[in-house]
Amino acid sequence: MEILILGAGSWGTAMAIHLNDLGHKITLWTRDIEQRNYILKTRYNKKYLDVLIPYNIVITTDIKEAVKNNSIIIFAVPSDVVRNVAVDLKGIIDKKTIIVNLAKGIETTSLKRMSEVINEILDNTIVVLSGPSHAEEVCRHIPTACVLSSKNINACEYIQDIFMNENFRLYINKDIIGVELGGALKNIIALGAGISDGLGFGDNTKAALMTRGLAEISRLGVALGADPLTFLGLSGMGDLIVTCTSMYSRNRRAGIKIGQGKSLKEALKEIGMVVEGVKTTESAYKLSQIHNITMPITKEMYSILFEGKNPHDAVYNLMTRSKKHEMEYI
Amino acid sequence: MEILILGAGSWGTAMAIHLNDLGHKITLWTRDIEQRNYILKTRYNKKYLDVLIPYNIVITTDIKEAVKNNSIIIFAVPSDVVRNVAVDLKGIIDKKTIIVNLAKGIETTSLKRMSEVINEILDNTIVVLSGPSHAEEVCRHIPTACVLSSKNINACEYIQDIFMNENFRLYINKDIIGVELGGALKNIIALGAGISDGLGFGDNTKAALMTRGLAEISRLGVALGADPLTFLGLSGMGDLIVTCTSMYSRNRRAGIKIGQGKSLKEALKEIGMVVEGVKTTESAYKLSQIHNITMPITKEMYSILFEGKNPHDAVYNLMTRSKKHEMEYI
Repeated sequence: MEILILGAGSWGTAMAIHLNDLGHKITLWTRDIEQRNYILKTRYNKKYLDVLIPYNIVITTDIKEAVKNNSIIIFAVPSDVVRNVAVDLKGIIDKKTIIVNLAKGIETTSLKRMSEVINEILDNTIVVLSGPSHAEEVCRHIPTACVLSSKNINACEYIQDIFMNENFRLYINKDIIGVELGGALKNIIALGAGISDGLGFGDNTKAALMTRGLAEISRLGVALGADPLTFLGLSGMGDLIVTCTSMYSRNRRAGIKIGQGKSLKEALKEIGMVVEGVKTTESAYKLSQIHNITMPITKEMYSILFEGKNPHDAVYNLMTRSKKHEMEYI
Repeated sequence: MEILILGAGSWGTAMAIHLNDLGHKITLWTRDIEQRNYILKTRYNKKYLDVLIPYNIVITTDIKEAVKNNSIIIFAVPSDVVRNVAVDLKGIIDKKTIIVNLAKGIETTSLKRMSEVINEILDNTIVVLSGPSHAEEVCRHIPTACVLSSKNINACEYIQDIFMNENFRLYINKDIIGVELGGALKNIIALGAGISDGLGFGDNTKAALMTRGLAEISRLGVALGADPLTFLGLSGMGDLIVTCTSMYSRNRRAGIKIGQGKSLKEALKEIGMVVEGVKTTESAYKLSQIHNITMPITKEMYSILFEGKNPHDAVYNLMTRSKKHEMEYI
């Protein structure tokens, strides 16, 4: 099977290595000529992933050439360039090609999920892959389980057969809205979990933040048409756990810096890679206003990130809200 | 308010300190005369919790005397002595006294939840308190959120008013079956998470184990009458997270030792305190057989703990099961 991966960040590179191990013929595309040259010379992807990239993986910057002969194209670019990449493919992608999207986010302008953004431009079948999957572990064959979703379940089963092995287990979930929202919105809570750690709070605090965070994500998800049980799954709780507790998580690391007193700008500069949770906080805050959903954690995160609120005051606000029933949707 | 706490382990002691801070008159009962004398002499509870116990907390071994004048009695004993303590209270407890239960487990003989065991012996109103709450953090005023449940919701609201402050937030959930099962069954997965860590697996692996673990806990819970959404809450996912990721968790620490190649007996000896997950694995395994619920992780855990199975083989079995849909209940 010939597979093209668009984006040579850490997740694109790890997926290239995983699928190459499975015997597929992989092309890895990057827009960055300097990065291509560096990988071709060293077989390492410095900045992103400290692992050897096998010689039989083709590295290219020529998307027109790369797009030929591939029956699967994987989107592994930051969420805010998904639209541009889809535009690049318009007119040159075969209609039968299946797109597998790995990008997690909600477009800040249109407030659309990634599969919606792609489908606005391309008619291809889209399968989304989401779940707890740090690239640093997948490329080292550490046991990982993720979930696939699509409007076309046959396409999910097809991708499951091609992508899965004993180190990389894939489940299928029919609820594409819930799967995409879980993967995107969890980054807001990961930023918050980092802030809690940066402030010096404990494991209890973080577990409560994650749980109540998932509760409000589910509330928004249900309003947007998701099944609440999806948030109990790998793309919800699973991805939330890994993003909030692992030091591999950029969102968490950015949050720690903010909790320690740095500004958003300083924190992002020090991370030096895309921190998806920042834009997602903006999108989720807008969505919560439009749909009139109570999202106290997202609201406090928005105030910390964009209005300069002191994180200590945000935690105090969350802990002193009025007495609630756990399953109340307020 | 006069409150009696039965059990001077880490959670009982932390709750005594928290409620004392709130201005209540606290008596802490232990069966162990040596422990009582040590606390009276040093105001420390050595083995369990490295924090000063305020002088106005009364320490006693005389349950008959202690039970007088208390309108709330808190059970903070290991789950396998809850029945004996309830028997001790029979005939001497006032019928209006509310019992708050902190013990998390399922009796291995009767397969009953803790509130069912207590209600077999005593007619008092029972409120259960569960959620992510390491004693080591609660006694240091680290922000913590838990959940209360009862057949009597008025009693929950009464306890919420008495126990809650800005560091210790309490929600109410009407689903007592789900709340109790979440708190008990999560310890099986925490043992498994420890084993995964002990084997040297990664954050992806543990997040997948926790997520699929909660999925099978929910399946059993639903069969026993719980609301599946309760497992998304503080007593489900929240407590699972804290128990699987914190080094305060005895269950996780026991699992790490087993993953590193120690026997169950050696691991328990080294921990030196009750590891609730061992007995709960036995109870849950029995329940899964009786109710014909597929619980692959619990089954592998049972094999590791009681049948000497190699943990590596157990992980391989879990990763190579047939291809599944995420929300399939098989």
